Amino acid sequence: MLSVIELMRAIDSGALSPAAVIDRCAAAIAAREATIGAFTCLDIGAARAAAAIVKGPLAGIPVGVKDIFDTADFPTEFGSPIYAGYRSRGDASLVALMRRAGCTVLGKTVTTEFAYFTPRGTRNPHNPGHTPGGSSSGSAAAVAAGMVPLATGSQTGGSIIRPAAYCGVAGFKPSFRLLPTVGMKPFSWSLDTAGLFAASVADVAYATAAITARDLRVDRQAPPGAPAIAVLDMQHWTEASDAMKEAVSRAARAAEAAGATVTTLRLPDAVADLAETQQAIQNHEAAQALAYEYNTHRDQLSDTLRMLIEKGMAITPDGYDSARRTAQHARRAFAALEGADIILAPSATGIAPEGLSSTGSPVFNWLWTLLGTPCVNVPGLADSSGMPLGVQVIARFGQDHAALQAGHFLEHAIRRSA
Amino acid sequence: MLSVIELMRAIDSGALSPAAVIDRCAAAIAAREATIGAFTCLDIGAARAAAAIVKGPLAGIPVGVKDIFDTADFPTEFGSPIYAGYRSRGDASLVALMRRAGCTVLGKTVTTEFAYFTPRGTRNPHNPGHTPGGSSSGSAAAVAAGMVPLATGSQTGGSIIRPAAYCGVAGFKPSFRLLPTVGMKPFSWSLDTAGLFAASVADVAYATAAITARDLRVDRQAPPGAPAIAVLDMQHWTEASDAMKEAVSRAARAAEAAGATVTTLRLPDAVADLAETQQAIQNHEAAQALAYEYNTHRDQLSDTLRMLIEKGMAITPDGYDSARRTAQHARRAFAALEGADIILAPSATGIAPEGLSSTGSPVFNWLWTLLGTPCVNVPGLADSSGMPLGVQVIARFGQDHAALQAGHFLEHAIRRSA
Repeated sequence: MLSVIELMRAIDSGALSPAAVIDRCAAAIAAREATIGAFTCLDIGAARAAAAIVKGPLAGIPVGVKDIFDTADFPTEFGSPIYAGYRSRGDASLVALMRRAGCTVLGKTVTTEFAYFTPRGTRNPHNPGHTPGGSSSGSAAAVAAGMVPLATGSQTGGSIIRPAAYCGVAGFKPSFRLLPTVGMKPFSWSLDTAGLFAASVADVAYATAAITARDLRVDRQAPPGAPAIAVLDMQHWTEASDAMKEAVSRAARAAEAAGATVTTLRLPDAVADLAETQQAIQNHEAAQALAYEYNTHRDQLSDTLRMLIEKGMAITPDGYDSARRTAQHARRAFAALEGADIILAPSATGIAPEGLSSTGSPVFNWLWTLLGTPCVNVPGLADSSGMPLGVQVIARFGQDHAALQAGHFLEHAIRRSA
Repeated sequence: MLSVIELMRAIDSGALSPAAVIDRCAAAIAAREATIGAFTCLDIGAARAAAAIVKGPLAGIPVGVKDIFDTADFPTEFGSPIYAGYRSRGDASLVALMRRAGCTVLGKTVTTEFAYFTPRGTRNPHNPGHTPGGSSSGSAAAVAAGMVPLATGSQTGGSIIRPAAYCGVAGFKPSFRLLPTVGMKPFSWSLDTAGLFAASVADVAYATAAITARDLRVDRQAPPGAPAIAVLDMQHWTEASDAMKEAVSRAARAAEAAGATVTTLRLPDAVADLAETQQAIQNHEAAQALAYEYNTHRDQLSDTLRMLIEKGMAITPDGYDSARRTAQHARRAFAALEGADIILAPSATGIAPEGLSSTGSPVFNWLWTLLGTPCVNVPGLADSSGMPLGVQVIARFGQDHAALQAGHFLEHAIRRSA
């Protein structure tokens, strides 16, 4: 994989030219894209030309943009035949801010249909017989395969953290709306969250800091003391595979060995039992967000999505309002929950499932998306066959730096324990 | 003006055909559009053809769509030369839901540049030497001039309630996100609120109920008891003209004469002093929402907007986070404030200012947009020259039906007292 921080150091020192960075990406793409299918479109020549002249803290970093974000210079198709060949007039805000920070857009990465479940053929770089997860399938796979050092994603259910886990890369779902979602195709406006993929936790932190001008880096200051980590009690998380349970234990032991205090956290029901709430909000909003597509292009929607929209249309305004109140209550209960400053939990139920017909289950992600908390997928663990097993570090809303610091700590602890 | 409810009754009874409704709009447009300039584009023929075949609770109602909402069949230019001739691929969610309810889009109505301050020439139907207000200039003017019975608007500062007041029509800014904003050009995602204009409060209530399937109508059930109304103490509202102060008093006296309990409400500082907070959130978000336009088409932005964006870029993330916390605190303080179930306040500082270079001041609207509360501009009052003076009824977040009921009560009370 290509590290954002290492590339920036090499560029800054003159050891590597921005064009040489593009060449590395191009080489990985030439070697693996035919198998993996991470991109919907690419323009290596344009990126090489742009990389030579850009400035900023990410000058020379080529990025993959999930094809759910508008881009002025590439088609934006949202993973749907309805938008075949569609070109937006401008860039999504996140894309515009990344360009301002010096990034060059190398291409658009595959998304499932409107960032919901229907996959579009991308394969897992660790084993092409397995899904890379979704909905940010191409972004996670492109980073894992070394095709780009940085890529954008979005999460409404589990669309950043799950593919990051399946592909063995760092994934960062920041606090709700830390990164702007303007120009990102909406699915559920109360939940849609923009985020990033990169090789390591320090890399996503560096990139997010550069884009937002927030103090989020974890690579330069003296590390804070080892964190107090609360391992999620799996009482409500019965879908976790044995391998995933073992991965969480290994991560906890590694953290403890590195000096962290490790406790266990049982979630109260008001916080834990929110799958129906997340689904009611998501589905009711998706039915409105995709009202035009349902009105006018119903036959070009997948059955899965059409049924989801109809489920959302059947939710009454009262049912939706009630779900929003439950979510609001849960956010307050979580904010007041003792011992929940840094939580360690599975990123997914296990390794990436075999086959390409499903992108796997987001059940371990819904809660945190609904709560709007920052989540960091920490890479570095794997099962006996070598398939990545991701664990996530979760912090309270607005505590993005703490989440990234703890994720960075854990990533190194895992590496040392291997 | 054309009443949605009266038109629907006439259509339902067979007294009026949907085509005849379009003809009425067309006649008003032929008579007055050359002077007023409410529309950016129009297709009367297409609306007549569509009106003949639609179904739904608003079947046969022609609408004007503020040119900040995407429409599949008209250009969407956002009041900016950057988007001259731009055609979105689909409809904004609100437009799609209105079509589903039976509306036909007659045309797009003038918005100021990106729904901020720079006006685009629309004149006030009550006196063409005066502004209609903004940013929803064309929608308010078109309804006031009888060109359409219903039009969409959006409010980030005071862009629905102020032009409704200046043009003497009912304007409804619902609770934050009651109407979907998907496909509406974002300016400040924490504040942008979609709403409607119509001839009377009962008309906006009827239309919102039809679009959302929410129980919001005020025209059919036995009216509730007369409301308890708290008149806003003007301690913080020193910009109000004498005519406006008198209008609020007249409205309060009329309400009392009609049986309402009338008290006075002094806002605590935590709630009242939020202009800087609203501005910090709006400007910081606008700088991100318009990052592409600023990156790529800076010379096509008005000076006013370019300076606003630069002001927003100068707000630090800490300053923005602090403003968001202040807003959150104020929302909770307002929710807990006794005697604030129904508030009566000025909709604007006075009548529409003379001239077309300014759209007037939104200082009396910022607070309620920030709090996310439903606001209803109640028409019916005027100064000695006949220029409309609007007063607004405000209810707590989520109490949209109560706001509409109180607005409906007040509208009738004012009419009876005249």
